Amino acid sequence: MSLPTDFLTQLQSLYPPERISLSRAVREQHARDQSAHDPHLPDVVVWPLTTEEVSQTLRLAHDARVPVTPWGAGTSIEGNPIPVQGGLVMDFSRMDQILAIHERDFQVTVQPGVLYKDMNKILARYGLFFAPDPGANASIGGMIANNAAGIRTVKYGATRDNVLALEVVLADGRVIRTGSRSVKQSAGYDLTHLFVGSEGTLGVITEATLKLAPIPAHVSAAVARFPTVADAAAAVFDIIGSGLDPTALELLDATAMRILNTDPDIPHFPEQPTLFMEFASSHEAALHDSLELVRDICQEHGAEGFETGVSRQERARIWHARHHLFEAHVRYFSGQKFLVGDAAVPISHYPELIARTAALMEEMGVVGSLLGHAGDGNIHTIVFYPPDDLEARDRALAFNDAFVSLALELEGTCTGEHGVGLGKRKFMAKEHGLAIEVMRQLKQTLDPRGILNPGKVLP
Amino acid sequence: MSLPTDFLTQLQSLYPPERISLSRAVREQHARDQSAHDPHLPDVVVWPLTTEEVSQTLRLAHDARVPVTPWGAGTSIEGNPIPVQGGLVMDFSRMDQILAIHERDFQVTVQPGVLYKDMNKILARYGLFFAPDPGANASIGGMIANNAAGIRTVKYGATRDNVLALEVVLADGRVIRTGSRSVKQSAGYDLTHLFVGSEGTLGVITEATLKLAPIPAHVSAAVARFPTVADAAAAVFDIIGSGLDPTALELLDATAMRILNTDPDIPHFPEQPTLFMEFASSHEAALHDSLELVRDICQEHGAEGFETGVSRQERARIWHARHHLFEAHVRYFSGQKFLVGDAAVPISHYPELIARTAALMEEMGVVGSLLGHAGDGNIHTIVFYPPDDLEARDRALAFNDAFVSLALELEGTCTGEHGVGLGKRKFMAKEHGLAIEVMRQLKQTLDPRGILNPGKVLP
Repeated sequence: MSLPTDFLTQLQSLYPPERISLSRAVREQHARDQSAHDPHLPDVVVWPLTTEEVSQTLRLAHDARVPVTPWGAGTSIEGNPIPVQGGLVMDFSRMDQILAIHERDFQVTVQPGVLYKDMNKILARYGLFFAPDPGANASIGGMIANNAAGIRTVKYGATRDNVLALEVVLADGRVIRTGSRSVKQSAGYDLTHLFVGSEGTLGVITEATLKLAPIPAHVSAAVARFPTVADAAAAVFDIIGSGLDPTALELLDATAMRILNTDPDIPHFPEQPTLFMEFASSHEAALHDSLELVRDICQEHGAEGFETGVSRQERARIWHARHHLFEAHVRYFSGQKFLVGDAAVPISHYPELIARTAALMEEMGVVGSLLGHAGDGNIHTIVFYPPDDLEARDRALAFNDAFVSLALELEGTCTGEHGVGLGKRKFMAKEHGLAIEVMRQLKQTLDPRGILNPGKVLP
Repeated sequence: MSLPTDFLTQLQSLYPPERISLSRAVREQHARDQSAHDPHLPDVVVWPLTTEEVSQTLRLAHDARVPVTPWGAGTSIEGNPIPVQGGLVMDFSRMDQILAIHERDFQVTVQPGVLYKDMNKILARYGLFFAPDPGANASIGGMIANNAAGIRTVKYGATRDNVLALEVVLADGRVIRTGSRSVKQSAGYDLTHLFVGSEGTLGVITEATLKLAPIPAHVSAAVARFPTVADAAAAVFDIIGSGLDPTALELLDATAMRILNTDPDIPHFPEQPTLFMEFASSHEAALHDSLELVRDICQEHGAEGFETGVSRQERARIWHARHHLFEAHVRYFSGQKFLVGDAAVPISHYPELIARTAALMEEMGVVGSLLGHAGDGNIHTIVFYPPDDLEARDRALAFNDAFVSLALELEGTCTGEHGVGLGKRKFMAKEHGLAIEVMRQLKQTLDPRGILNPGKVLP
């Protein structure tokens, strides 16, 4: 689109020159996320500092019917913040203050632009951390918009489970506050959860109060390798089904292990399907008992190695490598196009999902990895293909469709943590049926002119 | 209202005679809950058995603009299911099947009429339980509609935190399914949480999949009494702030203890402010350490007695008495009218809330108890007054207003777990400000004719 002249003039009177940009370089930085989805240039980028500026900006955009896409750190991998209809990108990177640390309530109140890792570094001084851990150094606003999750979700829940209150600017510029700092709330409709995971399509988050967790006193990690991914998945099911409560339970297939091994900072692991597990407790003896039980379960499923006593430092290096495994894949398959899969099922169906997905990859001849947050039934695929090989691209797409359909068949979801963005819209009707109509009605009610992150979430 | 003749005829062709009633006695059973809110007769009561019947009934009611109030077990205490505009009451007590126990996923799928205690008795055979424990033998549909909570919420969360998927019939009869059995979900708007806690005003729940918890291996309880409720509340704050993770942490003031003592099945307790605490672990030594720390904290705050080693049987009797404390109050103050308060604040403000509420009761000369789920910052007041003493009634109302205002001033909520119903509507604007407008827009979108439980939640 081209921006209405009046709109641009008004915007330029609202923002000082250093916080508004029409430059191609800046617009290109806001045209893509970390996915392989096609980029699209916005027409203008602004950096608000206050809720009032966000509100005024939205009022202008609403009047002029200009698309507005909120921008966090651009680390999403389903095209979620790509401004596919152009218009305005609102970059929150300068609205990044920690507003209050409620130490004894285990809560923090922040602006949306604060980065996850930076925030947790500061919170560590208080013995606290925000548990949903997406790996990437995402912004908190982006994590909320996407309902991000990660390796800690198996114990602490996703972002959704850890947001108590929000300040949200609606499409027409109205500012509302949802929820409260009380952990118990039963006063009216749960607007907080409606905005969490709505990917910026229902409102723009300008403040959030998050639940934190105390950093556990005793932590122990274990690594086990298995003959097949199906064996590893069967062990996962038994670990969770035994009521054990891991703080992380990650599955990597042989290809993912090979790529993990490219990290020079970690020990070299055998290139076999592997579980990385972490347990925490206030009590060392309890931890020891848990690990004994886990060892038994893993060995029942044919685990060939079971190492415990991984040092704190080594653990940190392994999680660091795990967190950067996506980028490591992109480097490893340098020059290739890729497609990231993300599905989740009830844990009882997890062994079947894993076994059949591995078989699909083999049968369809796609190249890539199977890895994921196994403890909560989540799995990712990353498949690669040469940019000019249309047949390989079609196979990759067909594989992804088959993989998601399988997850839906197994009572799961088309996206466990990456959100719908662009790539998952085609599965929404199949997953939600008539409920899509209700989602559309809500979108129409809260954003009647369709200016908020258009082209996302709804098919 | 009087029912349109056509509507009644159509309803009578939909339901066999044993599942529809116009009798005064039946209507009177559905005119009140356990609160002191004025009763109101519905015009007709039906007992659906299937989602299809619920859908057809709503279609008829929608066409004829007849109010519909879903009815669970009638155990709520804020007037939530009183059919204040008459019309139709849909009683779910015969739609009470457990549809599937997903044992290894720690999940159960049920119809809305199944009763909490009955369900947990069956789940106990699998070593599992649904943790949000409202005390009353509420229906699961009612618990979801109200976002009920109770003594276990401090560890396991409220009902909201334990619902994965719903089937909901909308006002116009459309049937939708929300969420999925995958614990991880990021696919579109979170409709599940929108319906949880909406008190039957946005849709009618006809099926739910719930998260369950394994029954803990080792449990230990402790009882401590304190010079004042403020001392007890200060101990609560330190227990939670220390990162201890009680499975229950209940505060009762001296009056509540006197009434608890009227239960013949429990040991006689000193009539002083008291904390009842329960801790669980997979490991006995961890449990022992927790109790040692709790003892130290209680003694720092002047605890005069600290008993542990409460037997399993005695514990069960104490929780039973605690669960029936509301009814015990009503018996104790037999013939009097009463007003139940319910507010919650961040735990750091809990000592102040308790101290100032106790002072308010004293200053305003109201008669009653202060008790609550202290571990999650929730407190209840129950105040009594003679039915013909208008001045005492006004004092009770003024006290409740002051109590709720205090909770809001302390960053809390006007209702932690009883819901808004009739009695809390007047505080909604103060608590939510402009967000009330959004709640109204959602209500208008999902129930444009305003037939679903009219007169509730929104002011």
